[in-house]
Amino acid sequence: MNGAESLVKALVNLGVDTCLTNPGTSEMHFVNALDSVEGMRPVLGLFEGVVTGAADGYGRMAGKPAATLMHLGPGLANGLANLHNARRANSPIVNIVGDHATYHRQYDAPLQSDIVSIARPVSGRVQTVKSASSIPADAVEAVAAAYGPPGSISTLILPADLSWGDTDAGPIDSLKKKASKTVAADTITRIAKVLSSGKPAMLLLRGDVLLEEGLTAAGRVAEVSGSKLFCDTFVSRLQRGAGRAKISRLPYFGEGVVDKMAGIKHLILVGTKPPVSFFAYPDKPGWLTPEDCDIHILSEPDEDGTQALLALADKLGAPAEGLSLYPERRPELHTGPVTQASVAAAAGAFLPENAVVSDESGTSGILLLKETAGAPPHDWLFLTGGSIGQGLPLATGAALACPDRKVVSFCGDGGAMQTIQALWTQARENLDVTTVIFSNRRYGILQVEFNRVGVINPGPKALSVTSLDNPELDFQQLSRGMGVQADRATTADEFNRLFESAMNNRGPRLIEVIL
Amino acid sequence: MNGAESLVKALVNLGVDTCLTNPGTSEMHFVNALDSVEGMRPVLGLFEGVVTGAADGYGRMAGKPAATLMHLGPGLANGLANLHNARRANSPIVNIVGDHATYHRQYDAPLQSDIVSIARPVSGRVQTVKSASSIPADAVEAVAAAYGPPGSISTLILPADLSWGDTDAGPIDSLKKKASKTVAADTITRIAKVLSSGKPAMLLLRGDVLLEEGLTAAGRVAEVSGSKLFCDTFVSRLQRGAGRAKISRLPYFGEGVVDKMAGIKHLILVGTKPPVSFFAYPDKPGWLTPEDCDIHILSEPDEDGTQALLALADKLGAPAEGLSLYPERRPELHTGPVTQASVAAAAGAFLPENAVVSDESGTSGILLLKETAGAPPHDWLFLTGGSIGQGLPLATGAALACPDRKVVSFCGDGGAMQTIQALWTQARENLDVTTVIFSNRRYGILQVEFNRVGVINPGPKALSVTSLDNPELDFQQLSRGMGVQADRATTADEFNRLFESAMNNRGPRLIEVIL
Repeated sequence: MNGAESLVKALVNLGVDTCLTNPGTSEMHFVNALDSVEGMRPVLGLFEGVVTGAADGYGRMAGKPAATLMHLGPGLANGLANLHNARRANSPIVNIVGDHATYHRQYDAPLQSDIVSIARPVSGRVQTVKSASSIPADAVEAVAAAYGPPGSISTLILPADLSWGDTDAGPIDSLKKKASKTVAADTITRIAKVLSSGKPAMLLLRGDVLLEEGLTAAGRVAEVSGSKLFCDTFVSRLQRGAGRAKISRLPYFGEGVVDKMAGIKHLILVGTKPPVSFFAYPDKPGWLTPEDCDIHILSEPDEDGTQALLALADKLGAPAEGLSLYPERRPELHTGPVTQASVAAAAGAFLPENAVVSDESGTSGILLLKETAGAPPHDWLFLTGGSIGQGLPLATGAALACPDRKVVSFCGDGGAMQTIQALWTQARENLDVTTVIFSNRRYGILQVEFNRVGVINPGPKALSVTSLDNPELDFQQLSRGMGVQADRATTADEFNRLFESAMNNRGPRLIEVIL
Repeated sequence: MNGAESLVKALVNLGVDTCLTNPGTSEMHFVNALDSVEGMRPVLGLFEGVVTGAADGYGRMAGKPAATLMHLGPGLANGLANLHNARRANSPIVNIVGDHATYHRQYDAPLQSDIVSIARPVSGRVQTVKSASSIPADAVEAVAAAYGPPGSISTLILPADLSWGDTDAGPIDSLKKKASKTVAADTITRIAKVLSSGKPAMLLLRGDVLLEEGLTAAGRVAEVSGSKLFCDTFVSRLQRGAGRAKISRLPYFGEGVVDKMAGIKHLILVGTKPPVSFFAYPDKPGWLTPEDCDIHILSEPDEDGTQALLALADKLGAPAEGLSLYPERRPELHTGPVTQASVAAAAGAFLPENAVVSDESGTSGILLLKETAGAPPHDWLFLTGGSIGQGLPLATGAALACPDRKVVSFCGDGGAMQTIQALWTQARENLDVTTVIFSNRRYGILQVEFNRVGVINPGPKALSVTSLDNPELDFQQLSRGMGVQADRATTADEFNRLFESAMNNRGPRLIEVIL
């Protein structure tokens, strides 16, 4: 057995059974091991941003890491932006990055680079394999680090000679998965006292407390204490829809957050930090919590926030039943030209139960959340790190993790073009993903931001580098060129029909919405 | 005047007049300054790998840096792989990377990352702007660092508050461009003595000695001394074609290099290092120079190799005229199915004078150099750092730098898909680029490498992650989807006709070659 086989075997034994990859020469033994060792599903991405974004989507939905396999520093670099997003989502990912043979590094061959430095800014843990025989133990540590808690990116650099070097299979330890820490009872007591003070309070949530169990507990706490219940603007995964607890989302712009927090005297943090502005702007605040608001931490990201919320609900005497939930509501369909509003209404009307939504809709998707709030229960995945090009890969990975669920990917044209290669992987793997491209032919947010940063009349050059016209992108052709069926909607009726059909049929397809 | 305007003004005054960009909110003042300050041409890329690869192509052909403008760490990260290639090409590039306002960093907002760490592995110089008033001086230093010699990547991180902060225009120093060092006379004398020894010698070249003047001098040295004349396998820019000095290129695989160097007793390095294997392989050598071969350095990369070669030629008494040059030769066109050979013959038959070729043809292009050697004088740009996805962006940048020259981009399907977004920029800027895609539906080099790393019968999974079939990519649709006219060739006749037409007409087009 060689080192690569030993690594694949260890990963499979540790429950890592999906490998997203764009490999190169230094990874060929690992690639070969995919056949000689049973149990690992390889998925090819044509660009590493697809590989890492899909690993993020997979991690969010599977609750366990996929492996990535990338080619030295430049391959990793191509995947870095979506690893940045994944880091902000606390997604568990195990990166395997091939490197030159240890004895070859002295030569500074063309592909050599400082892989550790490239990996460090996005990784919770970076380790270079030191010997073929240590690989099983290294894999155990790498996978454990990915699990966290909270989930994190764990990068294992595998020099080629250790990949092809002989090793005994060796005993593979079982996964040393750490449990979340329990929140101390006196913290619960203290927060309960705060919430019983009668002063206006806000609960702010992030992380896996946004799955149904934690959310229900948070809803009970909010209802019994009369607190506002919010989640961060961009969270990893939010379980929502008809029959689930109501939660609001902090607005994107800081002024909106200030508005929502006006008068709040107690901010209770559950797995998150006090809200800050996404960007700084001249003469606008970055810190958004009111000055006279006290900040309290119920749980840190590595603590069991769900358990804490349950204990807090009980402590406050919140009834176990009777929580006011999202009512079922399917919006009326629109007619006329297709618009942001008509797409949002159709999404709400047709989104199937258990759907997974990857949302990189930017300025075009502001009505989506409102109109889908009463759709059957579903999961919503957000652009966590602000780096566009997450949406299509994320949907790809979510579909790999959840083959029995419909995945819907709402994406702006600008973001879609960053990692458009994801469509090919969706076609190859026949993933059940419906991609909706909002084609407004501009980086919409930037044209909004001109005003906010104090630029009143942007000139022709400024407009040119924030516009996607000249030439217009044809997403039907782009999609078909990668093997994904595609249609275009210019009227609401067309979109309604296409989207309904997509929700009722399996397989990858794309709908280009001409706004 | 604000900091961003001060920076654009300084760059323009220093001769940097092209800005390749994919901007975001933190760069909006810089974007606005493109209109308020005269003289900077902005070029939008839909993905940062296009931005940086185009800056590389621009730098190689213009002999001066373009600026890039990218959005915080993740934007830079997306451009990193082609910066890796540019670093290996010693291309001059000035990266401007926007960052959060200095006072906003304390909040660790979603897009925050360690920009310096991401920039360092590819940059010769990284600097964070400390105050708006220092920007002109910072620009002078940044541009000077990009010039080198040798050329290098100079990254300037611009916090948003310094971008919008008021500053006096301030005096802008003129460019402090360092001259290459002169090679010492006794080095020339020493190398002349070595080459007069009568023992087999090889001259190995890299860098701007591969432009016509240096190459001619090297040819004279080789001819008078009976030495072999080679360049590295992957060089930034090689001037070649009919009427230019003959030079061979070291083969890609180490065994081939060993073969070419067999019996060589003196290796003379001109701006390069002794050759090493691109990758390490089990039981194959990494160091390729024969054990009994003496290594001599004529010039380092920061020295004037051309001047040294001229002095060496004179010292050896090489005649100034009468050097044996590439004869003019236009190959016969092929008929039958389109093949690597038929494409190469057509390239040789129709390549126009002064063409610029961006070569990322991989395994499909091995006959191109042979068949174009007798075409009219032209420039050939290679994939310098081994990270695929360079070819299309590089062609884009070369065309921006040389609007009056035909640019031809030969690219494998795998490499093309990494940065396919480059086609859109070619369409928008109406660049005179003909892209030829070798569609063999595989990562050809990897399927060759299986055997070389000892994998005799790759299994279905290994074949799957090295194959681009299922589904087949349709480059015609991809290209038209981004506004570039496209055709497909399945016969040699079709390709010959399409390529001839492309060489005789201006504007971007793509030819998909079905191998």
